[in-house]
Amino acid sequence: MAPDRGGRTASPLAPGVVAALADLPPPERAFASDNTAGAHPVVLDAMVAANDGHVTGYGDDPWTGALEAAFADLFGRPVGVALCFGGTGANVVALHTLCTRDSEIVCAADAHIAIDECGAPEHITGAQLAAYPWNAAGKVEPGQVHDAAARLGRIHIEERTDTPHVVSVTQATEVGTVYSEQELTAVVAAAHEHGMLVHVDGARLVNALAAWGYAPAELGAAGRALAATGVDVVSFGGTKAGLVGAEAVVFLDPARAEGVGSRRKQATQTASKMRFLAAQFLVGLEDGRMLAWAHHANTSARRLADGVTALPGVAAVYPVDTNGVFVTLPPAAIDPLAAWSHFYVWDRPRGLVRFVASWDTTDEDVDRMVAGVAAAVAAAGAEA
Amino acid sequence: MAPDRGGRTASPLAPGVVAALADLPPPERAFASDNTAGAHPVVLDAMVAANDGHVTGYGDDPWTGALEAAFADLFGRPVGVALCFGGTGANVVALHTLCTRDSEIVCAADAHIAIDECGAPEHITGAQLAAYPWNAAGKVEPGQVHDAAARLGRIHIEERTDTPHVVSVTQATEVGTVYSEQELTAVVAAAHEHGMLVHVDGARLVNALAAWGYAPAELGAAGRALAATGVDVVSFGGTKAGLVGAEAVVFLDPARAEGVGSRRKQATQTASKMRFLAAQFLVGLEDGRMLAWAHHANTSARRLADGVTALPGVAAVYPVDTNGVFVTLPPAAIDPLAAWSHFYVWDRPRGLVRFVASWDTTDEDVDRMVAGVAAAVAAAGAEA
Amino acid sequence: MAPDRGGRTASPLAPGVVAALADLPPPERAFASDNTAGAHPVVLDAMVAANDGHVTGYGDDPWTGALEAAFADLFGRPVGVALCFGGTGANVVALHTLCTRDSEIVCAADAHIAIDECGAPEHITGAQLAAYPWNAAGKVEPGQVHDAAARLGRIHIEERTDTPHVVSVTQATEVGTVYSEQELTAVVAAAHEHGMLVHVDGARLVNALAAWGYAPAELGAAGRALAATGVDVVSFGGTKAGLVGAEAVVFLDPARAEGVGSRRKQATQTASKMRFLAAQFLVGLEDGRMLAWAHHANTSARRLADGVTALPGVAAVYPVDTNGVFVTLPPAAIDPLAAWSHFYVWDRPRGLVRFVASWDTTDEDVDRMVAGVAAAVAAAGAEA
Amino acid sequence: MAPDRGGRTASPLAPGVVAALADLPPPERAFASDNTAGAHPVVLDAMVAANDGHVTGYGDDPWTGALEAAFADLFGRPVGVALCFGGTGANVVALHTLCTRDSEIVCAADAHIAIDECGAPEHITGAQLAAYPWNAAGKVEPGQVHDAAARLGRIHIEERTDTPHVVSVTQATEVGTVYSEQELTAVVAAAHEHGMLVHVDGARLVNALAAWGYAPAELGAAGRALAATGVDVVSFGGTKAGLVGAEAVVFLDPARAEGVGSRRKQATQTASKMRFLAAQFLVGLEDGRMLAWAHHANTSARRLADGVTALPGVAAVYPVDTNGVFVTLPPAAIDPLAAWSHFYVWDRPRGLVRFVASWDTTDEDVDRMVAGVAAAVAAAGAEA
Repeated sequence: MAPDRGGRTASPLAPGVVAALADLPPPERAFASDNTAGAHPVVLDAMVAANDGHVTGYGDDPWTGALEAAFADLFGRPVGVALCFGGTGANVVALHTLCTRDSEIVCAADAHIAIDECGAPEHITGAQLAAYPWNAAGKVEPGQVHDAAARLGRIHIEERTDTPHVVSVTQATEVGTVYSEQELTAVVAAAHEHGMLVHVDGARLVNALAAWGYAPAELGAAGRALAATGVDVVSFGGTKAGLVGAEAVVFLDPARAEGVGSRRKQATQTASKMRFLAAQFLVGLEDGRMLAWAHHANTSARRLADGVTALPGVAAVYPVDTNGVFVTLPPAAIDPLAAWSHFYVWDRPRGLVRFVASWDTTDEDVDRMVAGVAAAVAAAGAEA
Repeated sequence: MAPDRGGRTASPLAPGVVAALADLPPPERAFASDNTAGAHPVVLDAMVAANDGHVTGYGDDPWTGALEAAFADLFGRPVGVALCFGGTGANVVALHTLCTRDSEIVCAADAHIAIDECGAPEHITGAQLAAYPWNAAGKVEPGQVHDAAARLGRIHIEERTDTPHVVSVTQATEVGTVYSEQELTAVVAAAHEHGMLVHVDGARLVNALAAWGYAPAELGAAGRALAATGVDVVSFGGTKAGLVGAEAVVFLDPARAEGVGSRRKQATQTASKMRFLAAQFLVGLEDGRMLAWAHHANTSARRLADGVTALPGVAAVYPVDTNGVFVTLPPAAIDPLAAWSHFYVWDRPRGLVRFVASWDTTDEDVDRMVAGVAAAVAAAGAEA
Repeated sequence: MAPDRGGRTASPLAPGVVAALADLPPPERAFASDNTAGAHPVVLDAMVAANDGHVTGYGDDPWTGALEAAFADLFGRPVGVALCFGGTGANVVALHTLCTRDSEIVCAADAHIAIDECGAPEHITGAQLAAYPWNAAGKVEPGQVHDAAARLGRIHIEERTDTPHVVSVTQATEVGTVYSEQELTAVVAAAHEHGMLVHVDGARLVNALAAWGYAPAELGAAGRALAATGVDVVSFGGTKAGLVGAEAVVFLDPARAEGVGSRRKQATQTASKMRFLAAQFLVGLEDGRMLAWAHHANTSARRLADGVTALPGVAAVYPVDTNGVFVTLPPAAIDPLAAWSHFYVWDRPRGLVRFVASWDTTDEDVDRMVAGVAAAVAAAGAEA
Repeated sequence: MAPDRGGRTASPLAPGVVAALADLPPPERAFASDNTAGAHPVVLDAMVAANDGHVTGYGDDPWTGALEAAFADLFGRPVGVALCFGGTGANVVALHTLCTRDSEIVCAADAHIAIDECGAPEHITGAQLAAYPWNAAGKVEPGQVHDAAARLGRIHIEERTDTPHVVSVTQATEVGTVYSEQELTAVVAAAHEHGMLVHVDGARLVNALAAWGYAPAELGAAGRALAATGVDVVSFGGTKAGLVGAEAVVFLDPARAEGVGSRRKQATQTASKMRFLAAQFLVGLEDGRMLAWAHHANTSARRLADGVTALPGVAAVYPVDTNGVFVTLPPAAIDPLAAWSHFYVWDRPRGLVRFVASWDTTDEDVDRMVAGVAAAVAAAGAEA
């Protein structure tokens, strides 16, 4: 049976669907998540190359220094950088540095920080989340920011006037959609109008930059376009893009990074052998590699979406802007399919499932998955 | 000038000492810390080998499964294992799983959890630290445990009877000494007498096991000896021993690991591509490699200690049980020496410095360092 | 100008409205809040009577003992009682005792715990709030509880199976409405179906019990009716009902009160001279006095609502179930009226204001207020 | 049996001592604590007088305004005042306003904030306590402040330079001793030298001011002397001095009070009917009443100390500077005496008990207690 996102499972497998799939070869690389993929080989090569002699720990090493320069170049301005181990950690470090215990963090109700991190952002920062119902594309809207700003005056009747409040947007969103440059600029403008800062949870940022239409060679242009929206701090994702495991918190105004050293330590995200994180990002940013990998993943998702949404009984739910494909399937098809090739059920009552393409997905993987969905859907129809 | 542990620096360099060191070659690998070393090459080989196809994230993969079996074999009993990114994270995850907000954690005043983690253990667990003045060997004593237990009744006048309290011991200690099997057993017995649990901060655990006299081939015997002391949970260090970056929280009673999944996530220590952490430990435990590396580091430290303490004006401060050498030097010698080859000043008013040997320290590194100390001490004497 | 609930003020006063009010006598007791009233004189008499000799502090005194018996009698069952200083404190102590750091607290988006306590519930308990958009009557609905339960499985992917989750309902609600016995029973049933506990924020509980139709002499019947709904813990409000300052956390299953002693102390709500809190409640419960005072306040609000909603341009927004009257007024009328007699603007863009009647409101107070509203509304119409 | 401070009890009562006490009348007011006393009648009179009509809640009322002026007059400078319900609350509000999550709070190991508040200061402020072993008089010493400042550089390797650290002193101390004006000035100077702020836990502040030699009519002079020591914020105790229940946090520089509004709310210490707290303090400060009550309590303690330390087998342990008397008694005498008249065993292994005199202790109470101790000690000697 297919595991639901929450770990729940459902009824026994429909035997007709199981039979229909029995002789089909499943994709070699499944569509469960972009973190089920390994790392691109050049990333491990770079780690091996970084394993050279002694260097000072905790970030005072040549690789980390070079990475800070690379990010400054990418964003076209001086930046503050704090490398982290993982995505939850990067979000927490970003927010913990910006917030005080009196802060409010406005986000979408399905934001990773709201429902996938076991409360780490609130527990570690001490700030409160104000999660807004998500709209049809999983995005925070400027109107919600204005509403939140109006409510903040009520929330803290005896408010500290210098309390920083934050809007956290996820780019690409949890449902694979992308704020356009215009949309993101509008959210930032709404936030800044009220003195609020904007954090980008960019676990899949490069996928979003690819969706904005920047070619791999244009990573710098993409970075400057992101900076031009006015966002204040970015959790720049590496792991899902093809690294072994590394995320970077980038403060687009270095002054905002004040205190990040102790805040990162409090959040348990300070690596002693930091060079091994920096080396991964350096090779990933070089020549726009991560952006190229994201292009590939997005294209594979597009191919998958085109294939499955052409089938009767399969409907797209969200625009396929990046590497996630959210579709509804006939209920009887879901569990046999997921037993045949691993993926997650996003919302069982709706029959909504998620497929995610990775940097290493092949066209053959996609075509096998489409064939499987076609067979399962057909058999489910016959059973019904 | 030599950076003090707290980042402070002192007066200008004594020119005579600088001159005395000018023509001496510094060690290729300095003695600043065991985390300034890279990783043993087999560790990176193992990561490359683990980069093979898609596997489920967050620990449900063959490498992590194999590692849990390896730890069970090592300790001779079923265990619960939670892999973590770093040492602070591992300590926090261990304590966060054991403690409630009403818990007290008894430790030595110089414990890493007390003074080197920016308050992460208290902030994330909600428990309180009760840090005891350290004795001449940096160890918690059974008498302190009894004293703490007596005070706990006072601390919580309206105490919850089922509140878990914890004694956290560091093995090897922050000053390189080692609790003997008898000493550790005595601390555990004192703790258990009062219903308190025992956590081992084992960032340098393999160095301590080597100091207990177990040969590399005897890693299993060493693990079972540790288990026999009765300790409840161990932060089993990998990074300082020669890995790229990985620490394992091992619960010697799997029932104590209940809830560790969400607690690890709350502490931002859950790796999505967990296989890359597991693969490091697997190769490090195989054939007792990490224990062999620790033997090598301890032996190098012994050679260094023998060399420098034979010099006039140099005095050992703590027994050199493992890979740390703590000695006092003439004040004028310290900063020129540290500028020549990086190490940390532990307590400047006392003239106390720390040298740490690593898995890759060579005899030539040691001999060059001894020669440098000899020259600096002689020149400092002449200047005085 | 009338202070908005968030402390904001608006434009200059309309001179015509100011003039229309100039010669009208404002009510002697304004309708700003039921905590702007003092205490009923019998409450202070009881405190004076309790000031007799020495008794043990922190609750081990005859008055506190008698109060626990009085609450057991009121609810018709053994209960656990924790007296607190204030309403925020009582809510925090109730939730802190029920919750762990992994808990979710489901509430309405306008709940006092969500927007009026500066984050105290989350900061002190460590639990997360899941605030649902409120419906037309400011109530949590069973469907929201079911939705939350479904989401809890997603929130904590690696959930502790024994984590207590809580639904917190406010009775009477922040907008003066009341869950009927049937409605409250339905919410409790939904919560219990999913293993969640139910907390009642009863800062105005006696007003709600009066609204359920219980006469003052029937306080015991009202308490048993509340217990029959199945709620688990109640913040039983005293201050707004007519006491000097005291709130009681009542656990309807004494086993749920385990640990409340240290949790109350952690929340800074343990009174040393507890007898002075207990004495207030004892006299308030005796002969159903607090219920009688609530009847009086509710009746005064009803009289006020009838008076003002008969005026052109004044519209009721919520049912007047208890002692709060929420109406919309013509914008130009609001600030001059509030300058004439203090009340709060609840939602300025909507022209929504709140009047609250107290235990000591007189018919003359009501009639003066109605006259003022009539004059202001008429003058505002003339200005428009 | 006498309850130990931690709730522990000991062996059966010695029958000879029980018999010796059987016919002696115990004191009408026991010496268990100054919070077992009620309030001075004028305090309740003042509360009754304040129960007059409607006033705005949460502190915007004439009584609270007058109290702020009274404190400014008392300390001879503009101050910020935050009234609180209780002593733990006042300490937490003071520290929560001064500290960030990166702060260290230096205190004595037996400070109330360290061992009697269930961790509330750390849980609510997020700061860490650094508790120093107490010296023979229960005081923090300047040398400890210097030591702490040196350690703070180590604690936060990546320290925020603007992190406020705090020294918290208890005046009078937990063992009834008093920092002289010179001693307190020296601790403050040490703290300010390192940029640390000084908090005074003054649950028994007026007893200390009386011990400094200021007559009741000199309350203003005493306040100005306290201000002259340079302390930054004072938890000014009222409850133990003779109020019903009220404590005031007084910031001697009003700028330090910034944000206290939301911090007090987060700490659940904001009273809605604040006038009833303010009225207590107003009458207590008027004509130096609280200082007079403290003089009386101190004098009673002195009389008790003189009486019991003249007995064989009874030894004073701490100087009797204020209203607490700490003496050792023969073990067999303790429990029968405490059963005869309630007091607390402070440290049973040492036979150390605590007697506390109150504002209402009479000479007859003292003389009866001395007679009881004399009889018990004599009988215990005969039994031995």
